[in-house]
Amino acid sequence: MTLKEDAINLHRMLKGKIEIQNRVSLDSVFEDEKGTLGLIYTPGVAYVSTEISNNKDLVYDYTSKWNNVAIVCDGTRVLGLGNVGPEAALPVMEGKSVLFKTLGGINAIPLCISIQDKEEIIKFVRAIQPGFGAVNIEDIESPKVLEIVERLRNELDIPVFHDDQHGTAVIALAALVNALKLVGKRLEATRVVIAGAGSAGYGIFKILYQAGCRDIIVADSKGAIYRGRADLTDDDSSSKNYNPYRHEIATITNLNLIIGNLADIIKGADVFIGVSGRGSIVSKDMVDSMNHDAIVFALSNPDPEILPSDASQAGARIVAT
Amino acid sequence: MTLKEDAINLHRMLKGKIEIQNRVSLDSVFEDEKGTLGLIYTPGVAYVSTEISNNKDLVYDYTSKWNNVAIVCDGTRVLGLGNVGPEAALPVMEGKSVLFKTLGGINAIPLCISIQDKEEIIKFVRAIQPGFGAVNIEDIESPKVLEIVERLRNELDIPVFHDDQHGTAVIALAALVNALKLVGKRLEATRVVIAGAGSAGYGIFKILYQAGCRDIIVADSKGAIYRGRADLTDDDSSSKNYNPYRHEIATITNLNLIIGNLADIIKGADVFIGVSGRGSIVSKDMVDSMNHDAIVFALSNPDPEILPSDASQAGARIVAT
Repeated sequence: MTLKEDAINLHRMLKGKIEIQNRVSLDSVFEDEKGTLGLIYTPGVAYVSTEISNNKDLVYDYTSKWNNVAIVCDGTRVLGLGNVGPEAALPVMEGKSVLFKTLGGINAIPLCISIQDKEEIIKFVRAIQPGFGAVNIEDIESPKVLEIVERLRNELDIPVFHDDQHGTAVIALAALVNALKLVGKRLEATRVVIAGAGSAGYGIFKILYQAGCRDIIVADSKGAIYRGRADLTDDDSSSKNYNPYRHEIATITNLNLIIGNLADIIKGADVFIGVSGRGSIVSKDMVDSMNHDAIVFALSNPDPEILPSDASQAGARIVAT
Repeated sequence: MTLKEDAINLHRMLKGKIEIQNRVSLDSVFEDEKGTLGLIYTPGVAYVSTEISNNKDLVYDYTSKWNNVAIVCDGTRVLGLGNVGPEAALPVMEGKSVLFKTLGGINAIPLCISIQDKEEIIKFVRAIQPGFGAVNIEDIESPKVLEIVERLRNELDIPVFHDDQHGTAVIALAALVNALKLVGKRLEATRVVIAGAGSAGYGIFKILYQAGCRDIIVADSKGAIYRGRADLTDDDSSSKNYNPYRHEIATITNLNLIIGNLADIIKGADVFIGVSGRGSIVSKDMVDSMNHDAIVFALSNPDPEILPSDASQAGARIVAT
């Protein structure tokens, strides 16, 4: 059986990887007039409802809001597959919900939505706020999603987490700190090349910079991003194509204005972090051209920038995927 | 302990009456490279996602969509409590979710939303369609909700159920059919007085009419609804206060143009159905004035139109609440 067959058979068998479970039993409810039905539903629940309407904070004490996370996805950038639509995003978000429950004990509800407009998505997330303790934005295309997340973090009373940006950045920094210890290098004296300037690339650049790393080069499909690159000279923030996040990268990173494609800029780098969404864009020769004790994180999925085995063979000291 | 104390203590103890449960185990995932993690999440799930993106119908086979119902409520008309807000609606909708699971094995996800505008609510429900097999609209104020439901039933590909309208109507008709058998009356020759012209009153009037009942009088807070009543003479459907559902009631019911308050019109009625949302509006004298073998369904909650014990004492043959 191939991985594909295994995955499809398992999904066909399960018909859903998550379900709702009651935390209260109704077994005896129809035998006993004083059963729990009259407490968890009308008439008893009316008292609970009234208390919350008088003091909204009580919703955290009397309902599951405190432990509910909405996973919001519009299906425009699912895994490395691209814009496959909200239906195709659902099995991925159900899988994420399984991870939330298994690893964190959290109720994560997938909401795969059929709206792609930025303002409409912001409105949507604002609307669901009453029933959730936090929001996890996931697999929405960049740069749209970066503004959505920024706006929601300002506007909402509950935490807004952006898995592709914050989740990837946290785990990448943690792995890098450990990897640098093993190879005996310091983050402050390390050259990091990041392939991909979407949500993950932006998030990783931000967290590495905040952690003290100053020699960062971010590449997108046009090669190294640097201040003054032809497509980034438009400073008109009202322009339709203006991308403030790419401008931020161009302003803060690559201060030596290194120009070139990925093969050019990876030469001599200590660390390569791939979050490009494109498989096999890094060759063995490119890994071989890196500094000694090279660290390679090829994070795109399902197809990484270079297979871990190839990166090792080409001399990378530490490889993650 | 009072009912109020019992209900609040139970909710405080539970901190949520429902939760997400995994339908797949990840126990061995970190020991075994070939565990389920790579199937339910990346890389395996990418194949499932791709298959669905090529054939959207497969979302019913590979995810929980087939068994997911969204409970959508804006908190504007919760139980008989009125506009208590979406946070206060949440414990009620969690209770409803418990009933869905216990009685139907269905995953019902409460979505208590902070938008009250009709068009925005329609947009919201349209947006969540990809992940749900059906929608249950609940405790949204009337007449707004009647148009929302009508529009959604036309626009969506999945069933839209309106609990207050359809749920109450189905159960009221079923109970009435049985009750009439017991007292030996025929629906076609029965006078029914309905108190309340909101979602439930409208739904019950519609289903009784379709079942063959022709002598129906619906009362709202202004008394009997009849064709030509002062507040219903405005036939301008573009007017802000135009209520097409109340006009429909005025056109089809009460053909004898019986005028008066509830105490007037209940005289001689065979059946009283209370869905007014107002407690204690029916006195023992009023029940006593009904036809022999009176049937009284006082359905408002938490406070019914008349207490069941009072209705029985006043001579009602069959009482439900």
